[in-house]
Amino acid sequence: MAHTVLVVMGSDSDFPVLEPCLKTLTEFGIDWEAVVCSAHRSPERAACLAREAEGKGVGVIIAAAGLAAHLPGVLASMTVLPVIGIPVKSGALDGMDALLSIVQMPPGVPVAAVAIDGAVNAAVLAAQVLSAGDPALRDRLRAYKEDLVRSVDLRDARLRKKIAGEVRP
Amino acid sequence: MAHTVLVVMGSDSDFPVLEPCLKTLTEFGIDWEAVVCSAHRSPERAACLAREAEGKGVGVIIAAAGLAAHLPGVLASMTVLPVIGIPVKSGALDGMDALLSIVQMPPGVPVAAVAIDGAVNAAVLAAQVLSAGDPALRDRLRAYKEDLVRSVDLRDARLRKKIAGEVRP
Amino acid sequence: MAHTVLVVMGSDSDFPVLEPCLKTLTEFGIDWEAVVCSAHRSPERAACLAREAEGKGVGVIIAAAGLAAHLPGVLASMTVLPVIGIPVKSGALDGMDALLSIVQMPPGVPVAAVAIDGAVNAAVLAAQVLSAGDPALRDRLRAYKEDLVRSVDLRDARLRKKIAGEVRP
Amino acid sequence: MAHTVLVVMGSDSDFPVLEPCLKTLTEFGIDWEAVVCSAHRSPERAACLAREAEGKGVGVIIAAAGLAAHLPGVLASMTVLPVIGIPVKSGALDGMDALLSIVQMPPGVPVAAVAIDGAVNAAVLAAQVLSAGDPALRDRLRAYKEDLVRSVDLRDARLRKKIAGEVRP
Amino acid sequence: MAHTVLVVMGSDSDFPVLEPCLKTLTEFGIDWEAVVCSAHRSPERAACLAREAEGKGVGVIIAAAGLAAHLPGVLASMTVLPVIGIPVKSGALDGMDALLSIVQMPPGVPVAAVAIDGAVNAAVLAAQVLSAGDPALRDRLRAYKEDLVRSVDLRDARLRKKIAGEVRP
Amino acid sequence: MAHTVLVVMGSDSDFPVLEPCLKTLTEFGIDWEAVVCSAHRSPERAACLAREAEGKGVGVIIAAAGLAAHLPGVLASMTVLPVIGIPVKSGALDGMDALLSIVQMPPGVPVAAVAIDGAVNAAVLAAQVLSAGDPALRDRLRAYKEDLVRSVDLRDARLRKKIAGEVRP
Amino acid sequence: MAHTVLVVMGSDSDFPVLEPCLKTLTEFGIDWEAVVCSAHRSPERAACLAREAEGKGVGVIIAAAGLAAHLPGVLASMTVLPVIGIPVKSGALDGMDALLSIVQMPPGVPVAAVAIDGAVNAAVLAAQVLSAGDPALRDRLRAYKEDLVRSVDLRDARLRKKIAGEVRP
Amino acid sequence: MAHTVLVVMGSDSDFPVLEPCLKTLTEFGIDWEAVVCSAHRSPERAACLAREAEGKGVGVIIAAAGLAAHLPGVLASMTVLPVIGIPVKSGALDGMDALLSIVQMPPGVPVAAVAIDGAVNAAVLAAQVLSAGDPALRDRLRAYKEDLVRSVDLRDARLRKKIAGEVRP
Repeated sequence: MAHTVLVVMGSDSDFPVLEPCLKTLTEFGIDWEAVVCSAHRSPERAACLAREAEGKGVGVIIAAAGLAAHLPGVLASMTVLPVIGIPVKSGALDGMDALLSIVQMPPGVPVAAVAIDGAVNAAVLAAQVLSAGDPALRDRLRAYKEDLVRSVDLRDARLRKKIAGEVRP
Repeated sequence: MAHTVLVVMGSDSDFPVLEPCLKTLTEFGIDWEAVVCSAHRSPERAACLAREAEGKGVGVIIAAAGLAAHLPGVLASMTVLPVIGIPVKSGALDGMDALLSIVQMPPGVPVAAVAIDGAVNAAVLAAQVLSAGDPALRDRLRAYKEDLVRSVDLRDARLRKKIAGEVRP
Repeated sequence: MAHTVLVVMGSDSDFPVLEPCLKTLTEFGIDWEAVVCSAHRSPERAACLAREAEGKGVGVIIAAAGLAAHLPGVLASMTVLPVIGIPVKSGALDGMDALLSIVQMPPGVPVAAVAIDGAVNAAVLAAQVLSAGDPALRDRLRAYKEDLVRSVDLRDARLRKKIAGEVRP
Repeated sequence: MAHTVLVVMGSDSDFPVLEPCLKTLTEFGIDWEAVVCSAHRSPERAACLAREAEGKGVGVIIAAAGLAAHLPGVLASMTVLPVIGIPVKSGALDGMDALLSIVQMPPGVPVAAVAIDGAVNAAVLAAQVLSAGDPALRDRLRAYKEDLVRSVDLRDARLRKKIAGEVRP
Repeated sequence: MAHTVLVVMGSDSDFPVLEPCLKTLTEFGIDWEAVVCSAHRSPERAACLAREAEGKGVGVIIAAAGLAAHLPGVLASMTVLPVIGIPVKSGALDGMDALLSIVQMPPGVPVAAVAIDGAVNAAVLAAQVLSAGDPALRDRLRAYKEDLVRSVDLRDARLRKKIAGEVRP
Repeated sequence: MAHTVLVVMGSDSDFPVLEPCLKTLTEFGIDWEAVVCSAHRSPERAACLAREAEGKGVGVIIAAAGLAAHLPGVLASMTVLPVIGIPVKSGALDGMDALLSIVQMPPGVPVAAVAIDGAVNAAVLAAQVLSAGDPALRDRLRAYKEDLVRSVDLRDARLRKKIAGEVRP
Repeated sequence: MAHTVLVVMGSDSDFPVLEPCLKTLTEFGIDWEAVVCSAHRSPERAACLAREAEGKGVGVIIAAAGLAAHLPGVLASMTVLPVIGIPVKSGALDGMDALLSIVQMPPGVPVAAVAIDGAVNAAVLAAQVLSAGDPALRDRLRAYKEDLVRSVDLRDARLRKKIAGEVRP
Repeated sequence: MAHTVLVVMGSDSDFPVLEPCLKTLTEFGIDWEAVVCSAHRSPERAACLAREAEGKGVGVIIAAAGLAAHLPGVLASMTVLPVIGIPVKSGALDGMDALLSIVQMPPGVPVAAVAIDGAVNAAVLAAQVLSAGDPALRDRLRAYKEDLVRSVDLRDARLRKKIAGEVRP
């Protein structure tokens, strides 16, 4: 049975940041569950989520948080599943605090950090992880890479059109 | 009965940084206990420490951590006691990561941050907090403030001597 | 008699940042006074405020300032009461200057720093400090923590509804 | 057949930083190959390594680089395998440049960043990824987590001894 | 035959940032081609562009990128032509990540970095480089410098008028 | 004869930032001249301005610049008059680049840096410098300081009114 | 009667940083007094120093401080004399905290900031300020500038010798 | 006649940083002259150097400076030759101030920035610029690139030997 991805965010107000992650997972045909949980406001719920994830068939946990973003690290401390952390841009420091709180984990308890607000890449990384035992998913990742090339071609064509129209008419 | 201070550090290798904190607490006549506990390596122990502290007569928790320093925030999530966080200078970023991981706590779960490696101030702050119901401790804080003035006088005298000897002999 | 909280801000234009602090103090049933005072523009008034606070029944001072935010440290230099500093986001550096000016206090004179614009947490921290001798306040803090858990549940429910409606209709 | 880990570093002078990664992989019973390759000095070799990795049974690529650390991203652009990036502390900026060059990848091509010089965590993360289809490896990860708890107990005992000997003799 | 400039951007959405570069090149009478290409999404196209540039008469490559901006460095790794890198302001860190990813290149493979969003200067620098063998272009650069002086005179006159009208009417 | 202040800005578009400086100088009864001059676009004009200033009765030079803000340092290299530098918030880095370019001058050629966009303080500092030989100006500075105290009183009154109206009606 | 310079440092341990300042003042024939005073440990002494300086013939105050460096601003709040602030490199942040605490002063109370550890420049700036009414001092400043030119010539000669000996023997 | 490179440094104490630049230029068969000149201490000499360079057959100027590194920009303001700037690591901020002072040049006057202490790359970039009209130099650049590949092979061999000897004996 294919593994699922558990997507944890600190508040439903983070949904717009996480939505591209959920959509990308769906595009890859990966089943996911999204929950609100806070390392600081609901620590016991966070502990439960992390401890029960593996038994429920979760293969990867994605956790997004801003400010002193402890959520990914706290979840990682209670599971052997890989945890991907998304630093969320928020507050006065625009996510630099969240990035350092997520990526600078001490030895023994890793979190895989992606870019600030890097929701799409969290999903692609989860897909890469899950594709080890799933040849069809790996094929979809290869197709995704080819789509990236095509999207560059498309943008290149748009640029040439814009230049022909505006810069060298 | 006077409250105690629980001092938590991530490793016994942090002891040199914390030692001035312990000594300052002792000078103020405050009883303390120091333990090693990690938010990431021993999350359950951290939860126990935080939950049981109040019942054991702890009045203030001081927690020191470096890198992605989650320890103070994780303890604060599980107690209503005031938690003082000391960011420890370590790793490539010299404690800036620890400072932001400690001070940028989200609304609802405060940590009282002091300076990077600010062990003495953590102790003085704890003494200030505990002195609310302890007139003798408050008197010691007043005496401590007068000592600070005297230490400035002493350094001023040393400076004048140095200048008389080296700069304007 | 219960202690009060003295809330000091550099200008009435900081009121919107501080309002959540005042409201949270009120919710905790803590009596407070709010004043405008500047470490640089009205240094004598700042000295008076700090020196007279303890005698007037103040238990905790909260001071908010932006830029080279000296106010919390200046107040702390003249009182043995705990001083909580709120760095205010303002100017070109978005509060990073204020954060460092507040948190990096030298040994002997601590300020308890909270996050940039962390007004709510300043109030909760003040409540934690004052609750040492006030069992009713500590109960309100415990209830506040339970509310935090409930708020996460509420947000989780909102997220699930949003997902059911928009992402997996 | 179990997957291997390909560990790529920009120079053999990075070996001391990477050695704990290699040792940790070995402790987890994971087979690995370590090579020197530079995104900038040997770009074709980098392209070959990335493109051929999957076919050679590699399950995860770990790449370490300092300064403008393009190596992990360049490898990730040419494979669907998960790539873990280790920013190396070097040069005037102590690895902050490497961290941002690794973690801030644009949408579509993720790199899983660990802490600056976070060699052990890169290995643990690789083990977590590979353990999806390898129950024995997952058991070793669980044992590793228990060892982390024990190492905290050990350090706590050492701390208590040090305090008994030096602080409260 | 005069050399041309190849201007490479990661997406057609970067066109507004690059447009002043293209216009300045045109003003200097320099022939240019602008293409969309991504170091990460279309690595093979990037390799082709860089390798074929010299043979097509390109004298300078200008590459603009944001976030973990690898494009200029990746192009530079595959050509002996001078590569000018423009860090693009985008994402949470406003281009600081792009600046460091572009300027901190390791020994052996230089990129000539200009300011964040420094599109005009990339063009002027390209003109300076190409002017070595082109006396007419060098004359245009001298005229451009004289225009800079005149633009300051013009702005000075505008300032004096504004002051006469608004400040000292 | 009283000395004047020469205010130099890189462009007339900096006028809104500098206007409070000019107004404050006028309020102090200090005569000033404002000119546009660029260290980079009109270096000879900058050299003339700096060299001729002393002979024209200028007592202090104020120079404002953004980005790689060389103007204050370049002027200071060609005069023995005190030069006050105002870093202007502009570009992607919001003035941090200008601050460091202005304040980090090497030994021998000082610039007196004020805050980013600190136009008022540049004027007050110039007044303080010029007041050494001008008792009337020093009296105005004393009155200015008293006005600062009164402005705090005024803001305090406004705060109390706001609280009475909105928070404790 | 010529004005003197009051040099204030937070501790006699700052003497090595300040010594070049004192020596430079002496070289310019400026009389100075150096004292230890702390904004936080001896706030009343700081207030006295600032308030009495003008009456004692002080023309410029130089204040050096590290960490949350409030001393220059606190002195400036209590005098109309120009105050020059030297951020001292100390602690985990190497003086960046001191720089921001000194330079980012709010409108109304300027501090003239020089570079981190910029002791010589503080003295030169003080000399420039005091030279307004002192033609002999201004002549010494002009001679100092000529010495700077000569020191460059000297270094150029040393470089040519080194190159002739080591690089092109 | 082949163009030469003018290498300008602020002090002969920068020679160790610049030496690899000079050696690399020599390896490429490029003639160079190295001089000490300071934008701030010897501004007239800097102006002369920049204005006369083109007439003396200089094709590229390389300028290295630390702190508020104005030298490259000041030279660039007075010549149409391409100017390469090397930020030197020095002082409390380890070259970040120099980097921003060099790279953030305003529109119209570019400086080509290389990495902090990036002396080798300044030389390689200068060689790339000069190679436009010099096929033999371009061939040497191609050979240099092949040497880079070989150096990676060499390091790879060293790594494999080290691993065989120490890690998997």
